[in-house]
Amino acid sequence: MLRKEQNDLVTQTGPGTPMGELFRRYWLPALLSEELAEPGGEPVRLQLLSERMLAFRDSDGKLGLIDEFCAHRGVSLWFGRNEDGGIRCPYHGWKYNVTGQCTEVPSEAKESGYAERIKLKSYPLVEQGGVIWVYMGPADQQPPLPAWEFSTVPARQSFMSKRIQECNWLQALEGGIDSSHVSFLHSGSLNADPLFKGAKGNQYNMNDLAPVFEVVEASGGLAIGVRRNAEDDQYYWRITPWVMPCFTMVPPRGDHPIHGHFWVPIDDHNCWAWSFDYHPTRDLTEGEVQAMRDGKGIHVRYVPGSNYVPEQNRTNNYLMDRAAQRAGTTYSGVEGIAMQDASLQESMGPIQDRTRENLVGTDNGIIMMRSRIMKSARALVEHGTLPPGRDAESQKVRSVAILLKRETPFSDGARDAMIAEAGKKHQSI
Amino acid sequence: MLRKEQNDLVTQTGPGTPMGELFRRYWLPALLSEELAEPGGEPVRLQLLSERMLAFRDSDGKLGLIDEFCAHRGVSLWFGRNEDGGIRCPYHGWKYNVTGQCTEVPSEAKESGYAERIKLKSYPLVEQGGVIWVYMGPADQQPPLPAWEFSTVPARQSFMSKRIQECNWLQALEGGIDSSHVSFLHSGSLNADPLFKGAKGNQYNMNDLAPVFEVVEASGGLAIGVRRNAEDDQYYWRITPWVMPCFTMVPPRGDHPIHGHFWVPIDDHNCWAWSFDYHPTRDLTEGEVQAMRDGKGIHVRYVPGSNYVPEQNRTNNYLMDRAAQRAGTTYSGVEGIAMQDASLQESMGPIQDRTRENLVGTDNGIIMMRSRIMKSARALVEHGTLPPGRDAESQKVRSVAILLKRETPFSDGARDAMIAEAGKKHQSI
Amino acid sequence: MLRKEQNDLVTQTGPGTPMGELFRRYWLPALLSEELAEPGGEPVRLQLLSERMLAFRDSDGKLGLIDEFCAHRGVSLWFGRNEDGGIRCPYHGWKYNVTGQCTEVPSEAKESGYAERIKLKSYPLVEQGGVIWVYMGPADQQPPLPAWEFSTVPARQSFMSKRIQECNWLQALEGGIDSSHVSFLHSGSLNADPLFKGAKGNQYNMNDLAPVFEVVEASGGLAIGVRRNAEDDQYYWRITPWVMPCFTMVPPRGDHPIHGHFWVPIDDHNCWAWSFDYHPTRDLTEGEVQAMRDGKGIHVRYVPGSNYVPEQNRTNNYLMDRAAQRAGTTYSGVEGIAMQDASLQESMGPIQDRTRENLVGTDNGIIMMRSRIMKSARALVEHGTLPPGRDAESQKVRSVAILLKRETPFSDGARDAMIAEAGKKHQSI
Repeated sequence: MLRKEQNDLVTQTGPGTPMGELFRRYWLPALLSEELAEPGGEPVRLQLLSERMLAFRDSDGKLGLIDEFCAHRGVSLWFGRNEDGGIRCPYHGWKYNVTGQCTEVPSEAKESGYAERIKLKSYPLVEQGGVIWVYMGPADQQPPLPAWEFSTVPARQSFMSKRIQECNWLQALEGGIDSSHVSFLHSGSLNADPLFKGAKGNQYNMNDLAPVFEVVEASGGLAIGVRRNAEDDQYYWRITPWVMPCFTMVPPRGDHPIHGHFWVPIDDHNCWAWSFDYHPTRDLTEGEVQAMRDGKGIHVRYVPGSNYVPEQNRTNNYLMDRAAQRAGTTYSGVEGIAMQDASLQESMGPIQDRTRENLVGTDNGIIMMRSRIMKSARALVEHGTLPPGRDAESQKVRSVAILLKRETPFSDGARDAMIAEAGKKHQSI
Repeated sequence: MLRKEQNDLVTQTGPGTPMGELFRRYWLPALLSEELAEPGGEPVRLQLLSERMLAFRDSDGKLGLIDEFCAHRGVSLWFGRNEDGGIRCPYHGWKYNVTGQCTEVPSEAKESGYAERIKLKSYPLVEQGGVIWVYMGPADQQPPLPAWEFSTVPARQSFMSKRIQECNWLQALEGGIDSSHVSFLHSGSLNADPLFKGAKGNQYNMNDLAPVFEVVEASGGLAIGVRRNAEDDQYYWRITPWVMPCFTMVPPRGDHPIHGHFWVPIDDHNCWAWSFDYHPTRDLTEGEVQAMRDGKGIHVRYVPGSNYVPEQNRTNNYLMDRAAQRAGTTYSGVEGIAMQDASLQESMGPIQDRTRENLVGTDNGIIMMRSRIMKSARALVEHGTLPPGRDAESQKVRSVAILLKRETPFSDGARDAMIAEAGKKHQSI
Repeated sequence: MLRKEQNDLVTQTGPGTPMGELFRRYWLPALLSEELAEPGGEPVRLQLLSERMLAFRDSDGKLGLIDEFCAHRGVSLWFGRNEDGGIRCPYHGWKYNVTGQCTEVPSEAKESGYAERIKLKSYPLVEQGGVIWVYMGPADQQPPLPAWEFSTVPARQSFMSKRIQECNWLQALEGGIDSSHVSFLHSGSLNADPLFKGAKGNQYNMNDLAPVFEVVEASGGLAIGVRRNAEDDQYYWRITPWVMPCFTMVPPRGDHPIHGHFWVPIDDHNCWAWSFDYHPTRDLTEGEVQAMRDGKGIHVRYVPGSNYVPEQNRTNNYLMDRAAQRAGTTYSGVEGIAMQDASLQESMGPIQDRTRENLVGTDNGIIMMRSRIMKSARALVEHGTLPPGRDAESQKVRSVAILLKRETPFSDGARDAMIAEAGKKHQSI
């Protein structure tokens, strides 16, 4: 349970807020590479952390993310012409390059130097692993490039999608680090989803509904270990890394690809749910890629022509199917792992009222995450302390599914498996 | 005309408001029995008096109305599984029975007694006369069960429907106790509607457009007598009972079934319009029931698949037909008695600004109703005085249509006719 | 750039605001004649300057604009019956004539004089040039009738349309007095639009992208001269009159009809864009009228059945066509001159944040307009000084396109051409 001020602190990410400052110290996923595929192609309106911006790839292939609105009279540059090294406002032809620098004001003489004095806010972008990343903080505090394993393996080993989620980022993240709901909400999908089914570990999930959480600090956030009873005096451990501020990974199953998420605030009532799937040591199969495109696993199908709006959404009650719910084909009546989560998280309201919640032992990951991220946000704002999770070492993590002797702490028994390393097989069951 | 504070007082019914407290001292219609027909069937989201709740019939057939949101992390229990004596949250399997008592928290050991300490807000429901009724007040002030005649006659003599109305409850109620508008707004329907036409009384309605209101206090509210000139030194009286807080009956016509309403706040901008039709001494005919189902009389047709949203509504201008208006087939151009009323009441805005109104003699019922209900709300909040209208005697009322000698006060001449009594023919003309 | 208080002052036009008071000292276009074509026809809901009103033509053909809501209990008179010299509320039959005077309260005895004491707010309307005009200010300050040339030429020489624009009136007006954007935003249309193409002047527009603004005060507002380089030591001048508060004219092209606009506030987030086209000395051709009806020139096509909502609008991204943008068929990708402007003006947000703009020399017309209108609004509110632009002389203006020797000031060289006079050919190129 949080006090009102705490809930405000941890959920508000606009400019000038403590949590907003914290988010502005990381490379965050901004766009899929496919959204800015062509030099000189269509620009994209993008809102992140309550800032409205325009992203484009200029005619030379350079990426830019600048203020959405022209410095002159406030027209949205989304209507602009992406031509010859910059985007040109269609109202009076003012032109900006990818750094937001105004390069041309046709009505003013070149010699006047007027254009040089006009510069829009802009943020650096980098492209890596099919994702365009943004850093929205002070230039002198920019961290090294992203080092997440999914974004550094060969492209054929990795798949990324995104979708809009209509609630605050935090309740989405809290779903991501809470692996105890799997045995309920996703129980139907464990048996049926082509990207989940067939793993031996699934049985442990289904047979022990009272898992025990053990959470340990990691350099970039937490390692959340969840153990269930297994045969032969063993525990079945599922280990979820959370790296600050909003990266989580789902523990793997069998030889399926591993998957995980980023939960990036659009504004305080909406977030982007980013969903990656990759295999550390082999290409994804055609069948796997097709299943991901078809909205299986943690991916979704979209409303045609929309900006990554899930086909199942609040307006259609997520296509709730009570007959399937009764039959147990789906536990909640909603189909698909991603929308099973999203439907419940959105049902909490735009921002969950955490003054009314009742947390239990299986929420230990959530409790420790909140504590650590609030502490980090305050340390940043009050003392300028840069938050953890910005370095490559913190980001080279893996989720783990493993059987360990009961007396072995997971942080010992899975120590090596929790570290991502090129070419190393992942520990799964 | 009300002052701003008075209008606020009488229109706001959320938790903690004086009028909200008053409403919470009565059994109110909550759902149609058909909405919770099956043991273990679909739960229903229900908002009343600005509280969001979940109604369900458990696998044993027991009815429950509990907080919509799980005590754990705030998920809407509408997504829940209605199974084995309770509703189970699909996120982590917490389960609640019809009293809101948590009966299972799978992650916690049974012996811990954790579940027993978790209880959601809940309100008692009773089923009677095709309606599921709720009492939302303090347990020690619960009134006796509803005694309305329509809900106690044999089922084949009674019919109930409901619809959403997009305005504050009070302007809907004020329409219900204002029988002077019938000669205008509903004049077309008096001749054409199968549940209204052919009564001898209709002619008196149409021939005297300046009715005189006489309002007398009744034990549960008011009896609003409206007289029009008739032949032979008589008056044609139409008598509308209002029983606190929101029950009204339309005076009868010929041998048609009698009808009436409850106007129950959803929030301050929306209400449920409940519409009953019954005959005190005979079964409804097949033709009558079919007409009611077809949206005749005070009933409506619905947007298919919607939650009792009228087919004619604000988004389609109530299917206004100017040609029918000109021809006089309908007086306002809107078809059907219910939507003739609702369209005008909604047109006043979400909450009518009563600081700008100009009331006349035919508004005497409204004036006295407001005065009495405000006085009762204040007495309840300030002195704990329970409001009138909670007892069976107050509820055993009938509307009346009667011819009386001019010198006879209606409260004498119709005294007996105004009392509901099993098997007694109703006084109509 | 404006300070926040200045931007509020100049954009807010509700009752009691300084700019609202200023607007209430002029005849403003309220409705197209076609909207109230028939005596006793359908009434029309109309919101202007944040006031909700009802317009109707009574059975005698008289025009009325009265409060939308009945004085009795607040019902919208849009549901009323337009019959026998007035509009009758369908709830209880109260009747109002075109002056807002209540003429009948059926429930009250005629002798009581009750009806005479009830009067709704009303404003005078006059019909002229296919437009119904309203004056919403104090009766003793009513200006002479509109004298705009388009509204006084024979009907066959003139065409008028209107459309809703979803932004504050000021950013629409600012587009109207800014003729420098034509060379960019409308460049595609100069070559293709049947009501623009073929004029010799178009080439000057396209060849000089750094026009120079010279703005001079006129009796009713400003004359905004914009010069571009031309051959033989001449300037090509395009002169836009602005007459207070919201009348602008586009400089003409060849023998095409001249066109212009009014920008009339609905509320602070929406305005009516009125668009007229007329030829001072000849009938419009059938082809021209057909083109205007088809949404060419400054006119638009509408969403069928809507209240003048443009077919291209925010909900469909104005049917943005990136291929056409790339090809240069349209400069911004949006088709049609009107929606090219509206799309950009709406993209600034409901009210442009003028604290963040950067104005340049080509914004001199805008700067001087703001200064003059704010000064006038303050003078009216503080000293009761009636604002300029209310007299016929101020309104008899024309836009001009002309070649002048470089040493000739436009206010000399075009002095006569800027004055509207019946039968005088307009100065165009």
